[in-house]
Amino acid sequence: MAQTSPDTAILLIHAPDQPGLVAAVSGFIAQRGGNIVALDEHVDAGVFFLRVAWQLPGFALSADELGGAIRSELAEPFGMSWQLHFSNQRPRLAIFVSTLPHCLYDILSRWQSGEWRVDIPLIISNHETLRPVAEQFGIPFHCFPITAETKQAQERAELELLRAHDIDLVVLARYMQIVSPVLIEAYPERIINIHHSFLPAFAGAKPYHAAHERGVKIIGATSHYVTEDLDAGPIIDQDVTPISHRDAVDDLIRKGRDLEKIVLARAVWSHLQRNVLCYGNRTVVFE
Amino acid sequence: MAQTSPDTAILLIHAPDQPGLVAAVSGFIAQRGGNIVALDEHVDAGVFFLRVAWQLPGFALSADELGGAIRSELAEPFGMSWQLHFSNQRPRLAIFVSTLPHCLYDILSRWQSGEWRVDIPLIISNHETLRPVAEQFGIPFHCFPITAETKQAQERAELELLRAHDIDLVVLARYMQIVSPVLIEAYPERIINIHHSFLPAFAGAKPYHAAHERGVKIIGATSHYVTEDLDAGPIIDQDVTPISHRDAVDDLIRKGRDLEKIVLARAVWSHLQRNVLCYGNRTVVFE
Amino acid sequence: MAQTSPDTAILLIHAPDQPGLVAAVSGFIAQRGGNIVALDEHVDAGVFFLRVAWQLPGFALSADELGGAIRSELAEPFGMSWQLHFSNQRPRLAIFVSTLPHCLYDILSRWQSGEWRVDIPLIISNHETLRPVAEQFGIPFHCFPITAETKQAQERAELELLRAHDIDLVVLARYMQIVSPVLIEAYPERIINIHHSFLPAFAGAKPYHAAHERGVKIIGATSHYVTEDLDAGPIIDQDVTPISHRDAVDDLIRKGRDLEKIVLARAVWSHLQRNVLCYGNRTVVFE
Amino acid sequence: MAQTSPDTAILLIHAPDQPGLVAAVSGFIAQRGGNIVALDEHVDAGVFFLRVAWQLPGFALSADELGGAIRSELAEPFGMSWQLHFSNQRPRLAIFVSTLPHCLYDILSRWQSGEWRVDIPLIISNHETLRPVAEQFGIPFHCFPITAETKQAQERAELELLRAHDIDLVVLARYMQIVSPVLIEAYPERIINIHHSFLPAFAGAKPYHAAHERGVKIIGATSHYVTEDLDAGPIIDQDVTPISHRDAVDDLIRKGRDLEKIVLARAVWSHLQRNVLCYGNRTVVFE
Repeated sequence: MAQTSPDTAILLIHAPDQPGLVAAVSGFIAQRGGNIVALDEHVDAGVFFLRVAWQLPGFALSADELGGAIRSELAEPFGMSWQLHFSNQRPRLAIFVSTLPHCLYDILSRWQSGEWRVDIPLIISNHETLRPVAEQFGIPFHCFPITAETKQAQERAELELLRAHDIDLVVLARYMQIVSPVLIEAYPERIINIHHSFLPAFAGAKPYHAAHERGVKIIGATSHYVTEDLDAGPIIDQDVTPISHRDAVDDLIRKGRDLEKIVLARAVWSHLQRNVLCYGNRTVVFE
Repeated sequence: MAQTSPDTAILLIHAPDQPGLVAAVSGFIAQRGGNIVALDEHVDAGVFFLRVAWQLPGFALSADELGGAIRSELAEPFGMSWQLHFSNQRPRLAIFVSTLPHCLYDILSRWQSGEWRVDIPLIISNHETLRPVAEQFGIPFHCFPITAETKQAQERAELELLRAHDIDLVVLARYMQIVSPVLIEAYPERIINIHHSFLPAFAGAKPYHAAHERGVKIIGATSHYVTEDLDAGPIIDQDVTPISHRDAVDDLIRKGRDLEKIVLARAVWSHLQRNVLCYGNRTVVFE
Repeated sequence: MAQTSPDTAILLIHAPDQPGLVAAVSGFIAQRGGNIVALDEHVDAGVFFLRVAWQLPGFALSADELGGAIRSELAEPFGMSWQLHFSNQRPRLAIFVSTLPHCLYDILSRWQSGEWRVDIPLIISNHETLRPVAEQFGIPFHCFPITAETKQAQERAELELLRAHDIDLVVLARYMQIVSPVLIEAYPERIINIHHSFLPAFAGAKPYHAAHERGVKIIGATSHYVTEDLDAGPIIDQDVTPISHRDAVDDLIRKGRDLEKIVLARAVWSHLQRNVLCYGNRTVVFE
Repeated sequence: MAQTSPDTAILLIHAPDQPGLVAAVSGFIAQRGGNIVALDEHVDAGVFFLRVAWQLPGFALSADELGGAIRSELAEPFGMSWQLHFSNQRPRLAIFVSTLPHCLYDILSRWQSGEWRVDIPLIISNHETLRPVAEQFGIPFHCFPITAETKQAQERAELELLRAHDIDLVVLARYMQIVSPVLIEAYPERIINIHHSFLPAFAGAKPYHAAHERGVKIIGATSHYVTEDLDAGPIIDQDVTPISHRDAVDDLIRKGRDLEKIVLARAVWSHLQRNVLCYGNRTVVFE
């Protein structure tokens, strides 16, 4: 789907499945003169998921009134969980990196060229290595070296910084540190990681070495929301590329870089388009 | 989506886009106690497309009453074109073949094993070559040799046979004859062909030779509805496979066989699931 | 590479890497008037791998003399392990199945249509279910029901049958029994299995259920040589297909069937072309 | 294959096929103490292609002597065309761009991060648009606005600049001008373009619009050497991505950007590794 044009509202819902849900939501919008530009629904194991987008010009309710009306007319009667987004909001991203630059370059290029309509107020790292890249793109770079002793304090400082900058989404762009619950709980379903394997194969450290050792004929990359279980959060996107016996570990690393940056970017895009709903440990990714 | 369970109704609609369409259709179903199990919509250039499926048990209208109610309450007020299908209908397929057996084996295997819930009352060919395959699977085989002189008469005879057997869908499984308007007009959007290239590249004869000559690094296959323009009808499905300089034309033919049979089977499956809507020369293929 | 034309010799070698190996082998062939039609080499961790094919017409040595000359002039001086094959040998395959027919249909179709130039003297199963398929294709079907008590005796009987029929390659076409060492040791690197996941993810039973539970966005299939470690033998081929939240377990099973049959067929083809060399627990698959 | 380690020689050959070619080349290297680290050969329609790489330390000939020995002992006796490269040479690239930045960002990121070991002494454009990107990465940017009247003179000026900087390879990174024979003849098989379609489908202008109009289900990108026939030169690499009816032209453009930058980078990498040989209008791309 095209990047949602300005001035649309996007409503994400999940609720116990029951007859009449689509009729209720679409009726709610139609009665107020809203023209639906996208509607996707999904039902899985008795749970109903909906993403609906409609044009705001000509719609009877203001953005301020809309939330209250959804609550009283839809959410309460049908027991819905819901999120409301507006396409003219500009999401604010923080990027976490360590020493590998390829995902960082890729994200900054998409931002600087206007491919992504987001703000990136800061980059956080546990190493100084990539400060020149951040500076070259004009983004403030904050280095928080981490040791076992300092980890807790540093992450609390990072969290303060994220809050001070009103960050909506944290992107771990090959950040080589396990993120602690203090951050995860502050940003539930709002921290996206890229893991350099086709999960659940080769979770943990050195997946390319493990893939080479096992002799697989395809390698992959996986983007997922971060949860407290390492490399086990809800998967947003995955992709793969063929390899052969000719590929040494260094070749897997080289070929994997391109996979990683593309799969991470696609996951962030899906999140920013408000196409993703989590349930249990899985995702609905509308297109 | 899973093969639709028995006892669902499937309604396909296209109409001029306007506010209230989803509300009207979903309301129509909800008011009569129908539980929607799948709903997909799409809007393109002012045209609205919808596929909605709901459970018939507990629904207030009988199958016989349903068509009339759709007509008066939905189609006429909103200017809709529509098709209504029932999942307990068993589609009837005719297979057209010439001398290459791989798509035929694949289709007959899916039918015989119960993977496809269809009837195949007959196979039509312009050659005797594949009669033993048809006989081995117990399907009547009708041979209509075709020359420039006999073509018109033979196709009329084929059409009578298709009608006598109440055929819903014609599958050209590497049938190496251009099908005439007499057949195409009798089965609009109901004849599916497999072309052994990534259309629109290499339309016409000998696409593997042309692909080799051009030095492409990927070959493809395309399934499409047959129209009067050769290899130019609405595309339902496509897939590709990488090749290299090591692949001679014979290798392209060998690798292409697997592509062809899978891409043809996926297109037929999509059609049988009533997931496909044509508009202009393109398709909406809901999933 | 094209299916090797009749009347070529194929020599597979691995040896400790050292200067002069390619020169020695290619010189050996050239001095006797052999024209090399394919030569691939690979070096990994100090081990040298070579596959070379040359035309026999005009070659100075007969097939009978060739082995001795390779041994004395190449293998002994360079410490090579080697296999010699002739393209006019017609490999003899045994197929093992249980109750799922799609890989069996696919293999028998390739055999009956002449796509594969092999003999299939027998099909072995632990169930009667697929006897009609075997009979329809005219292949003897041997049923060996297996319980914990009978397993050892039944596998010994199977082994006798394989030997009596001079079987070169055993293909496990969704055979749902763990094969015992007695068979594995008799056919080292000559039993090919298809596992219905992207190994090493989801080894063992019910991989599609596990994939659905984990919420992956891609499913796969893996063909490998059978070793005593379940689903852990050298991988020959893998492929994948995208899925989404819309796909229930039944959809994964349906989409997986096409993957399984294609990936198994490609692995068997590579083996039959003598393109595969094992080392450690990995494979070199020349193309 | 891993990026060739420093201090190897790479010899590319094509010659009329004849017995003894591999033996002659590998013997030439072995007799002088060279250890072959990679050897690939290919025969197509009576033409023999070879890429061989060997370690220079310990090799009996100096880089200066090597060319003469190849000429007299191999090239002349066997009628070979050949190129000799050394892995410690650092290739010099010129990038041509217009207004779209994604391929430029991608290339500059690979260069700046050290992923590619090349020099990029200059960027040439027919627009000022991307000067800030060049400056941000510290690369001289030369703008040559082009009109029908100035084209010839401007291209001659560009050519002088390329020669002054001793450029080995020209990369057209979404350069939206047809390049004239004056440049093409100066850099035969050394100008790589990215075309935003799966060639030969949708050659020429606006391929994404054409793809959308035709209703294809997959889009592609193609990297090729530039010849005087527009979009018709030898193809080096291609890749594709699936699309659906939900994708408007803007979505094709967005999804295509990622394809374009990856396919262009892979082609440049193959060229830089000296893996590519042209023949007729096709390529051998060794891996």
